[in-house]
Amino acid sequence: MKLYDFAPAPNPRRVRIFAAEKGIALDIVPVDLSSGVHRQAPYRDINADLVVPVLELDDGTKICESVAICRYLDELHPEPPLFGIDPLDRAMTEMWHRRVEIQGFTAAADALRNRSKFFENRALPGPVDYAQIPELAERGRQRVAQFFGMLDARLGESAFVASERFSIADIAALVVVDFAARTGSAPDDMPAAMAAWHAGVSARPSAAA
Amino acid sequence: MKLYDFAPAPNPRRVRIFAAEKGIALDIVPVDLSSGVHRQAPYRDINADLVVPVLELDDGTKICESVAICRYLDELHPEPPLFGIDPLDRAMTEMWHRRVEIQGFTAAADALRNRSKFFENRALPGPVDYAQIPELAERGRQRVAQFFGMLDARLGESAFVASERFSIADIAALVVVDFAARTGSAPDDMPAAMAAWHAGVSARPSAAA
Repeated sequence: MKLYDFAPAPNPRRVRIFAAEKGIALDIVPVDLSSGVHRQAPYRDINADLVVPVLELDDGTKICESVAICRYLDELHPEPPLFGIDPLDRAMTEMWHRRVEIQGFTAAADALRNRSKFFENRALPGPVDYAQIPELAERGRQRVAQFFGMLDARLGESAFVASERFSIADIAALVVVDFAARTGSAPDDMPAAMAAWHAGVSARPSAAA
Repeated sequence: MKLYDFAPAPNPRRVRIFAAEKGIALDIVPVDLSSGVHRQAPYRDINADLVVPVLELDDGTKICESVAICRYLDELHPEPPLFGIDPLDRAMTEMWHRRVEIQGFTAAADALRNRSKFFENRALPGPVDYAQIPELAERGRQRVAQFFGMLDARLGESAFVASERFSIADIAALVVVDFAARTGSAPDDMPAAMAAWHAGVSARPSAAA
Protein backbone atom coordinates (compact mmCIF):
# COMPACT_ATOMS: atom_id res chain seq x y z
CA MET A 1 0.00 0.00 0.00
CA LYS A 2 1.26 3.46 -0.96
CA LEU A 3 0.51 6.60 1.00
CA TYR A 4 0.70 9.88 -0.92
CA ASP A 5 2.04 12.18 1.75
CA PHE A 6 3.41 15.65 2.48
CA ALA A 7 5.39 15.58 5.71
CA PRO A 8 4.52 19.07 7.07
CA ALA A 9 0.76 18.82 6.44
CA PRO A 10 -1.51 17.87 9.35
CA ASN A 11 -3.88 15.42 7.68
CA PRO A 12 -1.28 12.92 6.43
CA ARG A 13 0.34 13.04 9.86
CA ARG A 14 -2.90 11.71 11.34
CA VAL A 15 -2.60 8.66 9.06
CA ARG A 16 1.11 8.18 9.70
CA ILE A 17 0.59 8.18 13.49
CA PHE A 18 -2.41 5.86 13.17
CA ALA A 19 -0.41 3.41 11.04
CA ALA A 20 2.54 3.58 13.45
CA GLU A 21 0.30 2.78 16.42
CA LYS A 22 -0.96 -0.25 14.49
CA GLY A 23 2.54 -1.30 13.44
CA ILE A 24 1.65 -0.96 9.75
CA ALA A 25 4.45 -0.01 7.35
CA LEU A 26 3.31 2.15 4.43
CA ASP A 27 5.23 2.87 1.26
CA ILE A 28 5.45 6.68 1.41
CA VAL A 29 5.17 8.65 -1.84
CA PRO A 30 6.07 12.29 -1.14
CA VAL A 31 3.96 14.93 -2.89
CA ASP A 32 5.58 18.34 -2.46
CA LEU A 33 2.54 20.58 -1.95
CA SER A 34 4.83 23.58 -1.55
CA SER A 35 5.81 23.28 -5.24
CA GLY A 36 2.22 23.11 -6.53
CA VAL A 37 2.85 19.71 -8.13
CA HIS A 38 -0.43 18.42 -6.66
CA ARG A 39 -2.39 20.83 -8.86
CA GLN A 40 -1.10 19.24 -12.06
CA ALA A 41 -1.13 15.82 -13.71
CA PRO A 42 -0.49 13.14 -12.62
CA TYR A 43 -1.57 14.02 -9.05
CA ARG A 44 -4.80 15.73 -10.00
CA ASP A 45 -5.87 12.43 -11.57
CA ILE A 46 -5.03 10.60 -8.34
CA ASN A 47 -7.20 12.93 -6.24
CA ALA A 48 -9.38 15.55 -7.91
CA ASP A 49 -9.65 17.31 -4.54
CA LEU A 50 -5.88 18.00 -4.83
CA VAL A 51 -5.16 17.07 -1.24
CA VAL A 52 -3.11 14.50 0.62
CA PRO A 53 -3.22 11.87 2.02
CA VAL A 54 -4.37 9.23 -0.45
CA LEU A 55 -3.92 5.51 0.18
CA GLU A 56 -3.39 3.51 -2.99
CA LEU A 57 -3.98 -0.22 -2.69
CA ASP A 58 -1.99 -2.80 -4.61
CA ASP A 59 -4.80 -3.10 -7.19
CA GLY A 60 -4.74 0.66 -7.80
CA THR A 61 -7.83 1.50 -5.73
CA LYS A 62 -7.45 4.92 -4.12
CA ILE A 63 -8.90 5.86 -0.75
CA CYS A 64 -9.02 9.60 0.01
CA GLU A 65 -9.85 11.36 3.28
CA SER A 66 -7.64 10.71 6.30
CA VAL A 67 -10.28 9.09 8.47
CA ALA A 68 -11.47 6.83 5.65
CA ILE A 69 -7.88 5.64 5.31
CA CYS A 70 -7.61 5.08 9.06
CA ARG A 71 -10.82 3.06 9.06
CA TYR A 72 -9.49 0.88 6.26
CA LEU A 73 -6.22 0.30 8.13
CA ASP A 74 -8.25 -0.49 11.25
CA GLU A 75 -10.19 -3.19 9.40
CA LEU A 76 -6.93 -4.80 8.27
CA HIS A 77 -5.29 -4.51 11.69
CA PRO A 78 -7.92 -4.27 14.45
CA GLU A 79 -5.31 -4.27 17.23
CA PRO A 80 -4.76 -2.10 19.14
CA PRO A 81 -8.29 -0.66 18.91
CA LEU A 82 -8.13 3.08 18.19
CA PHE A 83 -11.80 3.72 17.37
CA GLY A 84 -13.07 2.41 20.73
CA ILE A 85 -13.66 -1.00 22.30
CA ASP A 86 -17.43 -1.48 22.55
CA PRO A 87 -20.56 0.16 21.09
CA LEU A 88 -20.79 3.01 23.58
CA ASP A 89 -17.02 3.60 23.64
CA ARG A 90 -16.96 3.67 19.84
CA ALA A 91 -19.78 6.25 19.84
CA MET A 92 -18.00 8.39 22.44
CA THR A 93 -14.74 8.14 20.49
CA GLU A 94 -16.54 9.31 17.35
CA MET A 95 -18.10 12.17 19.35
CA TRP A 96 -14.80 13.42 20.74
CA HIS A 97 -12.98 12.89 17.47
CA ARG A 98 -15.54 15.03 15.69
CA ARG A 99 -15.36 17.72 18.35
CA VAL A 100 -11.60 17.89 17.81
CA GLU A 101 -12.06 18.07 14.05
CA ILE A 102 -14.88 20.62 14.05
CA GLN A 103 -13.64 22.85 16.86
CA GLY A 104 -9.88 22.42 16.35
CA PHE A 105 -8.96 21.50 12.79
CA THR A 106 -11.24 23.91 10.99
CA ALA A 107 -10.19 26.74 13.31
CA ALA A 108 -6.44 26.22 12.86
CA ALA A 109 -6.85 25.79 9.09
CA ASP A 110 -8.92 28.99 8.81
CA ALA A 111 -6.30 30.86 10.84
CA LEU A 112 -3.44 29.79 8.58
CA ARG A 113 -4.99 29.74 5.13
CA ASN A 114 -6.63 33.16 5.41
CA ARG A 115 -3.48 34.89 6.60
CA SER A 116 -0.39 33.26 5.09
CA LYS A 117 1.01 34.86 1.94
CA PHE A 118 1.62 31.34 0.64
CA PHE A 119 -2.12 30.60 0.53
CA GLU A 120 -3.10 33.88 -1.13
CA ASN A 121 -6.12 33.17 -3.33
CA ARG A 122 -6.09 29.54 -2.12
CA ALA A 123 -7.91 29.94 1.17
CA LEU A 124 -9.44 26.50 0.73
CA PRO A 125 -7.82 23.34 -0.62
CA GLY A 126 -9.20 22.01 -3.89
CA PRO A 127 -9.41 22.89 -7.55
CA VAL A 128 -11.32 26.20 -7.13
CA ASP A 129 -9.47 29.32 -5.99
CA TYR A 130 -11.04 31.26 -3.13
CA ALA A 131 -9.77 34.59 -1.85
CA GLN A 132 -8.52 34.91 1.70
CA ILE A 133 -10.91 36.46 4.24
CA PRO A 134 -8.87 38.24 6.94
CA GLU A 135 -11.75 38.19 9.46
CA LEU A 136 -11.79 34.41 9.10
CA ALA A 137 -8.11 34.20 10.03
CA GLU A 138 -8.80 36.22 13.18
CA ARG A 139 -11.89 34.14 14.00
CA GLY A 140 -9.77 31.02 13.54
CA ARG A 141 -7.27 32.25 16.13
CA GLN A 142 -10.05 32.96 18.60
CA ARG A 143 -11.55 29.53 18.01
CA VAL A 144 -8.19 27.79 18.48
CA ALA A 145 -7.94 29.46 21.91
CA GLN A 146 -11.50 28.34 22.68
CA PHE A 147 -10.59 24.81 21.55
CA PHE A 148 -7.55 24.76 23.83
CA GLY A 149 -9.80 25.67 26.77
CA MET A 150 -12.31 22.94 25.86
CA LEU A 151 -9.56 20.35 25.47
CA ASP A 152 -7.93 21.31 28.77
CA ALA A 153 -11.24 21.00 30.60
CA ARG A 154 -11.78 17.58 29.06
CA LEU A 155 -8.26 16.40 29.91
CA GLY A 156 -8.76 17.56 33.48
CA GLU A 157 -11.41 14.86 33.84
CA SER A 158 -10.13 12.13 31.50
CA ALA A 159 -6.66 10.64 30.89
CA PHE A 160 -7.20 10.77 27.13
CA VAL A 161 -9.51 12.76 24.89
CA ALA A 162 -12.26 10.18 24.33
CA SER A 163 -11.82 7.84 27.29
CA GLU A 164 -9.23 6.36 29.64
CA ARG A 165 -7.35 4.90 26.68
CA PHE A 166 -5.48 6.37 23.72
CA SER A 167 -7.63 6.64 20.57
CA ILE A 168 -7.90 8.32 17.20
CA ALA A 169 -9.29 11.37 19.04
CA ASP A 170 -5.88 11.79 20.72
CA ILE A 171 -4.15 11.49 17.36
CA ALA A 172 -6.33 14.22 15.88
CA ALA A 173 -5.88 16.44 18.93
CA LEU A 174 -2.09 16.01 18.99
CA VAL A 175 -1.85 16.82 15.29
CA VAL A 176 -4.00 19.93 15.47
CA VAL A 177 -2.31 21.25 18.61
CA ASP A 178 1.14 20.88 17.04
CA PHE A 179 -0.11 22.33 13.75
CA ALA A 180 -1.60 25.39 15.48
CA ALA A 181 1.63 25.95 17.40
CA ARG A 182 3.80 25.61 14.29
CA THR A 183 1.63 27.93 12.20
CA GLY A 184 1.22 30.63 14.83
CA SER A 185 -2.42 30.33 15.85
CA ALA A 186 -1.94 28.66 19.25
CA PRO A 187 -2.13 30.59 22.53
CA ASP A 188 1.32 31.22 24.04
CA ASP A 189 0.82 28.85 26.94
CA MET A 190 -0.73 25.43 27.06
CA PRO A 191 -3.01 24.98 30.09
CA ALA A 192 -1.92 22.42 32.70
CA ALA A 193 -4.02 19.33 32.01
CA MET A 194 -3.53 19.73 28.29
CA ALA A 195 0.23 20.19 28.71
CA ALA A 196 0.51 16.97 30.74
CA TRP A 197 -1.49 15.05 28.13
CA HIS A 198 0.55 16.61 25.30
CA ALA A 199 3.83 15.55 26.90
CA GLY A 200 2.53 12.00 27.24
CA VAL A 201 1.21 11.55 23.70
CA SER A 202 4.25 13.30 22.20
CA ALA A 203 6.50 10.77 23.95
CA ARG A 204 4.85 7.83 22.18
CA PRO A 205 7.05 6.54 19.34
CA SER A 206 4.15 7.07 16.89
CA ALA A 207 4.34 10.86 17.38
CA ALA A 208 7.53 10.92 15.33
CA ALA A 209 5.83 9.27 12.36
CA MET B 1 -33.71 6.32 24.09
CA LYS B 2 -34.55 10.01 23.79
CA LEU B 3 -33.47 12.18 20.87
CA TYR B 4 -33.23 15.91 21.54
CA ASP B 5 -34.35 17.30 18.23
CA PHE B 6 -35.32 20.44 16.33
CA ALA B 7 -37.36 19.50 13.28
CA PRO B 8 -36.11 22.20 10.83
CA ALA B 9 -32.40 21.73 11.58
CA PRO B 10 -30.33 19.59 9.20
CA ASN B 11 -28.23 17.60 11.67
CA PRO B 12 -31.05 16.00 13.65
CA ARG B 13 -32.75 15.13 10.34
CA ARG B 14 -29.70 13.00 9.48
CA VAL B 15 -30.30 10.96 12.65
CA ARG B 16 -34.08 10.74 12.13
CA ILE B 17 -33.63 9.39 8.60
CA PHE B 18 -30.92 6.98 9.74
CA ALA B 19 -33.16 5.64 12.55
CA ALA B 20 -36.12 5.35 10.17
CA GLU B 21 -34.03 3.30 7.69
CA LYS B 22 -33.11 1.00 10.60
CA GLY B 23 -36.68 0.80 11.86
CA ILE B 24 -35.67 2.28 15.23
CA ALA B 25 -38.29 4.30 17.10
CA LEU B 26 -36.83 7.18 19.12
CA ASP B 27 -38.59 9.17 21.80
CA ILE B 28 -38.37 12.69 20.36
CA VAL B 29 -37.80 15.61 22.75
CA PRO B 30 -38.28 18.86 20.82
CA VAL B 31 -35.83 21.68 21.62
CA ASP B 32 -37.06 24.89 20.01
CA LEU B 33 -33.79 26.45 18.82
CA SER B 34 -35.71 29.39 17.37
CA SER B 35 -36.65 30.48 20.90
CA GLY B 36 -33.09 30.34 22.25
CA VAL B 37 -34.07 27.79 24.91
CA HIS B 38 -31.00 25.70 24.03
CA ARG B 39 -28.72 28.47 25.32
CA GLN B 40 -30.11 28.24 28.84
CA ALA B 41 -30.45 25.61 31.57
CA PRO B 42 -31.44 22.82 31.45
CA TYR B 43 -30.32 22.28 27.82
CA ARG B 44 -26.89 23.84 28.20
CA ASP B 45 -26.20 21.17 30.83
CA ILE B 46 -27.31 18.45 28.41
CA ASN B 47 -24.92 19.65 25.67
CA ALA B 48 -22.41 22.42 26.38
CA ASP B 49 -22.01 22.87 22.61
CA LEU B 50 -25.66 24.05 22.57
CA VAL B 51 -26.56 22.04 19.50
CA VAL B 52 -28.94 19.25 18.60
CA PRO B 53 -29.18 16.32 18.18
CA VAL B 54 -28.29 14.55 21.43
CA LEU B 55 -29.18 10.92 22.11
CA GLU B 56 -29.89 10.21 25.77
CA LEU B 57 -29.74 6.56 26.76
CA ASP B 58 -31.98 5.06 29.43
CA ASP B 59 -29.16 5.32 32.00
CA GLY B 60 -28.77 9.05 31.30
CA THR B 61 -25.64 8.76 29.12
CA LYS B 62 -25.67 11.43 26.42
CA ILE B 63 -24.18 10.99 22.96
CA CYS B 64 -23.63 14.19 20.98
CA GLU B 65 -22.68 14.63 17.30
CA SER B 66 -25.01 13.25 14.63
CA VAL B 67 -22.63 10.67 13.22
CA ALA B 68 -21.64 9.39 16.68
CA ILE B 69 -25.35 8.82 17.34
CA CYS B 70 -25.77 7.06 13.98
CA ARG B 71 -22.81 4.78 14.74
CA TYR B 72 -24.33 3.86 18.09
CA LEU B 73 -27.68 3.08 16.47
CA ASP B 74 -25.83 1.03 13.85
CA GLU B 75 -24.18 -1.07 16.55
CA LEU B 76 -27.57 -1.80 18.11
CA HIS B 77 -29.24 -2.52 14.76
CA PRO B 78 -26.67 -3.54 12.14
CA GLU B 79 -29.32 -4.18 9.47
CA PRO B 80 -29.63 -2.75 6.91
CA PRO B 81 -25.95 -1.75 6.73
CA LEU B 82 -25.67 2.00 6.11
CA PHE B 83 -21.93 2.43 6.74
CA GLY B 84 -20.89 -0.09 4.04
CA ILE B 85 -20.75 -3.86 3.76
CA ASP B 86 -17.05 -4.83 3.78
CA PRO B 87 -13.72 -3.16 4.64
CA LEU B 88 -13.22 -1.38 1.33
CA ASP B 89 -16.88 -0.42 1.00
CA ARG B 90 -16.86 0.94 4.54
CA ALA B 91 -13.77 3.03 3.71
CA MET B 92 -15.33 4.35 0.51
CA THR B 93 -18.55 5.15 2.36
CA GLU B 94 -16.55 7.11 4.94
CA MET B 95 -14.71 8.92 2.12
CA TRP B 96 -17.88 9.99 0.31
CA HIS B 97 -19.68 10.81 3.53
CA ARG B 98 -16.85 13.13 4.51
CA ARG B 99 -16.77 14.75 1.08
CA VAL B 100 -20.47 15.52 1.47
CA GLU B 101 -19.92 16.93 4.94
CA ILE B 102 -16.81 18.97 4.13
CA GLN B 103 -17.85 20.24 0.71
CA GLY B 104 -21.61 20.44 1.25
CA PHE B 105 -22.56 20.91 4.89
CA THR B 106 -19.97 23.52 5.80
CA ALA B 107 -20.74 25.47 2.64
CA ALA B 108 -24.51 25.59 3.16
CA ALA B 109 -24.08 26.43 6.85
CA ASP B 110 -21.64 29.26 6.06
CA ALA B 111 -24.07 30.62 3.46
CA LEU B 112 -26.99 30.73 5.89
CA ARG B 113 -25.37 31.68 9.17
CA ASN B 114 -23.36 34.58 7.76
CA ARG B 115 -26.32 36.16 6.00
CA SER B 116 -29.54 35.51 7.91
CA LYS B 117 -30.69 38.25 10.29
CA PHE B 118 -31.66 35.49 12.72
CA PHE B 119 -28.02 34.41 13.14
CA GLU B 120 -26.65 37.92 13.60
CA ASN B 121 -23.69 37.65 15.98
CA ARG B 122 -24.15 33.87 16.08
CA ALA B 123 -22.37 32.88 12.90
CA LEU B 124 -21.24 29.66 14.53
CA PRO B 125 -23.20 27.37 16.84
CA GLY B 126 -21.92 27.08 20.39
CA PRO B 127 -21.52 29.13 23.52
CA VAL B 128 -19.26 31.85 22.03
CA ASP B 129 -20.74 34.60 19.86
CA TYR B 130 -19.02 35.23 16.55
CA ALA B 131 -19.93 38.05 14.16
CA GLN B 132 -21.20 37.28 10.69
CA ILE B 133 -18.70 37.58 7.83
CA PRO B 134 -20.58 38.54 4.64
CA GLU B 135 -17.78 37.29 2.35
CA LEU B 136 -18.15 33.90 3.98
CA ALA B 137 -21.86 33.81 3.10
CA GLU B 138 -21.01 34.52 -0.53
CA ARG B 139 -18.21 31.95 -0.53
CA GLY B 140 -20.66 29.45 0.94
CA ARG B 141 -23.07 30.00 -1.98
CA GLN B 142 -20.27 29.48 -4.48
CA ARG B 143 -19.16 26.31 -2.72
CA VAL B 144 -22.71 24.93 -2.63
CA ALA B 145 -22.84 25.33 -6.43
CA GLN B 146 -19.44 23.61 -6.69
CA PHE B 147 -20.74 20.80 -4.45
CA PHE B 148 -23.82 20.33 -6.64
CA GLY B 149 -21.51 19.91 -9.65
CA MET B 150 -19.34 17.38 -7.82
CA LEU B 151 -22.36 15.42 -6.62
CA ASP B 152 -23.95 15.39 -10.08
CA ALA B 153 -20.74 14.08 -11.64
CA ARG B 154 -20.56 11.35 -9.01
CA LEU B 155 -24.22 10.38 -9.47
CA GLY B 156 -23.66 10.18 -13.20
CA GLU B 157 -21.35 7.23 -12.56
CA SER B 158 -22.89 5.64 -9.44
CA ALA B 159 -26.50 4.87 -8.44
CA PHE B 160 -25.87 6.20 -4.94
CA VAL B 161 -23.30 8.56 -3.48
CA ALA B 162 -20.86 6.03 -2.01
CA SER B 163 -21.64 2.88 -3.99
CA GLU B 164 -24.43 1.02 -5.74
CA ARG B 165 -26.40 0.88 -2.49
CA PHE B 166 -28.02 3.47 -0.27
CA SER B 167 -25.80 4.56 2.64
CA ILE B 168 -25.26 7.25 5.24
CA ALA B 169 -23.56 9.30 2.50
CA ASP B 170 -26.92 9.52 0.70
CA ILE B 171 -28.62 10.58 3.92
CA ALA B 172 -26.09 13.38 4.43
CA ALA B 173 -26.35 14.46 0.80
CA LEU B 174 -30.16 14.48 0.81
CA VAL B 175 -30.23 16.53 4.00
CA VAL B 176 -27.73 19.12 2.81
CA VAL B 177 -29.33 19.47 -0.63
CA ASP B 178 -32.75 20.07 0.91
CA PHE B 179 -31.27 22.40 3.52
CA ALA B 180 -29.46 24.47 0.89
CA ALA B 181 -32.65 24.72 -1.18
CA ARG B 182 -34.78 25.73 1.80
CA THR B 183 -32.31 28.35 3.02
CA GLY B 184 -31.65 29.93 -0.37
CA SER B 185 -28.07 28.86 -1.15
CA ALA B 186 -28.82 26.20 -3.78
CA PRO B 187 -28.49 26.84 -7.52
CA ASP B 188 -31.87 27.33 -9.23
CA ASP B 189 -31.72 24.06 -11.13
CA MET B 190 -30.57 20.63 -10.04
CA PRO B 191 -28.44 18.92 -12.69
CA ALA B 192 -29.88 15.77 -14.29
CA ALA B 193 -28.14 12.88 -12.52
CA MET B 194 -28.48 14.58 -9.17
CA ALA B 195 -32.18 15.31 -9.82
CA ALA B 196 -32.89 11.65 -10.60
CA TRP B 197 -31.07 10.52 -7.46
CA HIS B 198 -32.86 13.18 -5.38
CA ALA B 199 -36.26 12.03 -6.59
CA GLY B 200 -35.40 8.45 -5.65
CA VAL B 201 -34.06 9.09 -2.17
CA SER B 202 -36.85 11.59 -1.42
CA ALA B 203 -39.41 8.90 -2.24
CA ARG B 204 -38.08 6.57 0.47
CA PRO B 205 -40.35 6.60 3.52
CA SER B 206 -37.37 7.60 5.69
CA ALA B 207 -37.11 10.99 3.94
CA ALA B 208 -40.24 12.12 5.78
CA ALA B 209 -38.68 11.39 9.17
